[in-house]
Amino acid sequence: MIITSHSSNPFPDNVDQMFTHCRMATMAKGNYGIMKNAALAVSGKKISWIGPMDALPETLGTIKVTDCRNQWILPGFVDCHTHLIWAGSRADEFEMRLAGASYADIARAGGGIFSTVTATRAADEDMLFDLASRRMARFLRQGITTVEIKSGYGLDLDTELKMLAVAGRLQKACPQDVSTTFLGAHALPPKFAGRSDDYIKEVVRIMLPEVKDQGIATAVDVFCENIAFSRDQTRQVFEKALALGFAIKLHAEQLSDSNGTALAAQMGALSCDHLEYLSLDGARKMADHGTVAVLLPGAFYYLRETRIPPVEYFRNLRIPMAVATDLNPGSSPVFGMMPVLNMACLLFGLTCEEALAGATINGARALNLADCKGSLEPGKDADFVIWDVDTPADLCYLTGITPLQNVVIGGKTAYVMA
Amino acid sequence: MIITSHSSNPFPDNVDQMFTHCRMATMAKGNYGIMKNAALAVSGKKISWIGPMDALPETLGTIKVTDCRNQWILPGFVDCHTHLIWAGSRADEFEMRLAGASYADIARAGGGIFSTVTATRAADEDMLFDLASRRMARFLRQGITTVEIKSGYGLDLDTELKMLAVAGRLQKACPQDVSTTFLGAHALPPKFAGRSDDYIKEVVRIMLPEVKDQGIATAVDVFCENIAFSRDQTRQVFEKALALGFAIKLHAEQLSDSNGTALAAQMGALSCDHLEYLSLDGARKMADHGTVAVLLPGAFYYLRETRIPPVEYFRNLRIPMAVATDLNPGSSPVFGMMPVLNMACLLFGLTCEEALAGATINGARALNLADCKGSLEPGKDADFVIWDVDTPADLCYLTGITPLQNVVIGGKTAYVMA
Repeated sequence: MIITSHSSNPFPDNVDQMFTHCRMATMAKGNYGIMKNAALAVSGKKISWIGPMDALPETLGTIKVTDCRNQWILPGFVDCHTHLIWAGSRADEFEMRLAGASYADIARAGGGIFSTVTATRAADEDMLFDLASRRMARFLRQGITTVEIKSGYGLDLDTELKMLAVAGRLQKACPQDVSTTFLGAHALPPKFAGRSDDYIKEVVRIMLPEVKDQGIATAVDVFCENIAFSRDQTRQVFEKALALGFAIKLHAEQLSDSNGTALAAQMGALSCDHLEYLSLDGARKMADHGTVAVLLPGAFYYLRETRIPPVEYFRNLRIPMAVATDLNPGSSPVFGMMPVLNMACLLFGLTCEEALAGATINGARALNLADCKGSLEPGKDADFVIWDVDTPADLCYLTGITPLQNVVIGGKTAYVMA
Repeated sequence: MIITSHSSNPFPDNVDQMFTHCRMATMAKGNYGIMKNAALAVSGKKISWIGPMDALPETLGTIKVTDCRNQWILPGFVDCHTHLIWAGSRADEFEMRLAGASYADIARAGGGIFSTVTATRAADEDMLFDLASRRMARFLRQGITTVEIKSGYGLDLDTELKMLAVAGRLQKACPQDVSTTFLGAHALPPKFAGRSDDYIKEVVRIMLPEVKDQGIATAVDVFCENIAFSRDQTRQVFEKALALGFAIKLHAEQLSDSNGTALAAQMGALSCDHLEYLSLDGARKMADHGTVAVLLPGAFYYLRETRIPPVEYFRNLRIPMAVATDLNPGSSPVFGMMPVLNMACLLFGLTCEEALAGATINGARALNLADCKGSLEPGKDADFVIWDVDTPADLCYLTGITPLQNVVIGGKTAYVMA
């Protein structure tokens, strides 16, 4: 039996759960999409209906009802750029840098990305899984319901595969959805010093096919930068990745303008990430090809950078802006999305609505998941968070508070605030 | 019976509790003062002994023992500058500003400090107490064990007294110690537009004596700035405050150099706070008179300021630097000390050790409480926090995590992480 209501939006007959008396920012189409005195229905793992309270059927029968007491429901955060799996700590390096140590001093003391590579290579899979699953639990308590995870602290076949295997285990063990990216071309391993083309050959000829065979990543990422890999090397990795059927993404124009963005956009990249030094030409290529701009204010902040990404280009060219934690131990030990929203607003000048769209629907776009994640719309996954706030802007405005009540993922309550 | 150990530091005979197998940053004298494989004894409300594990008596008898499993103990945070009592929200104003609204637009929409004044005047004492006690509970979960609270959102006698009465109730109801400051001269109330001298007269002749009579504040603060009160007006308030026996403090040189600092230092102020525009002359006066520099990076960050306080002056002149949340709804909705430590390091360039000294022993100095708060030393109050971190620098380095295990205040466990 189909229960119809006096809304034009028919109430489905297979509803399992209702969330009633809520305010909602649906974030559909990248806008707040605010609804007040509203309700949301879940059928199985999906949102099946959204509408005003007065459009509900008169009786809800056996449907489980959660009264939201006028609290806000927003889509779960989609964190589209993390390096969540690592071993070791870089707090000492942070402290040394503040005390005046140079990069050379830090390198001599065993710091920098290679300290993370060394610790990650040394850690066994269970230890990495244990460390990473605790980070996933923290993310859950911060309302992050979808997490992209990159490899890239192995820089050798075995460790890259180990990291991706850990990501696969997280997908099974944690309530969140995990999207896995192979980032073998993250940095040049010391063993290949002066032979970066040889390392790229290893990535292309050995690592990529093996990752494909094991089916443990959906996207391939490269760090295109003067301290990492060139445009030409990036192209080689992307050509092979595309031939194998991977989606592609790029760390681009973080510290200088290599114009990797134009290359990646023209090759169909889902996203280009960082983008502080992006040129207008690069931005136009992104617009032409529908590439998402992923902004990472945590890294900008921790590295004490001064040049912000060209937000006006993104606005004028209607390039979707995502925001993400970039969680990593070196440049962004940021364990939640609210600090990122706050920094996106205060450091990069995004509006609250832009920042929230960046952490939801545009984060989903950057992972090619916008058909099922990132907004509250019938047919999408029932991934959402109930917030005890006065206005969605509170999620950008407040520091040191996560005023979250419930996290629902795939229709299941995954976390309830104690 | 006095139990002696083979340490030169005699073990007292009246120990109630021991915290064993810990690492410690005592923060005594403003340094880390790190001890490893150590223990701390509590007698009543006080720390009575600190020493190495191998200096403990062979048997501890009936003493209650907490094994810290090598976790770190640091002094509880002393937050020496907050405006913790208010009603209303300014998230909308934050959002409007990011969306391009001018200060005039915001004022027309009823925003700015006077929106907080209006809401605080309208709220009854119980409502203010309820709002503020929730903030105190958040502070407790962040390891803040001593809290300074200012009035200043009343700007009329009744509301200023109401705020200070709420602070008094918080002192009784919350586990933290509260230090209360009268800040009647925070802003010019609209009723006195164009007549700031008249308002200062009201502060001096009516409010200060009444606050003194009621015994509900220990210090008096003024906002000396071109948008607030002049040096001469500040002097009038301070002269009366000193005559009545209050300690004095100053909001100084935040947005411009009024040289209020020199005045306050010469009059014996405990601290001058903000100080972005402090001159070398002002700094020298602080050094001459032992005034503490209270740095408030939250307000700097939220107001998107660019000029940082002259940290080199403080270092060179050996002026103690405190750091504080400046918790307030307009310019620093920062509900914890870790974000402040992080900003003090990354925005102001403090070392981790300086930032941690700022949030402990130097915060205590800014409240004239250094004889009993702010460091782990025998004879001081047993106010401390057990942290699940690798190094104290983690407290400055991490964003979005509060890796706290236990908070002890006056020898009592006030909070245990769930």
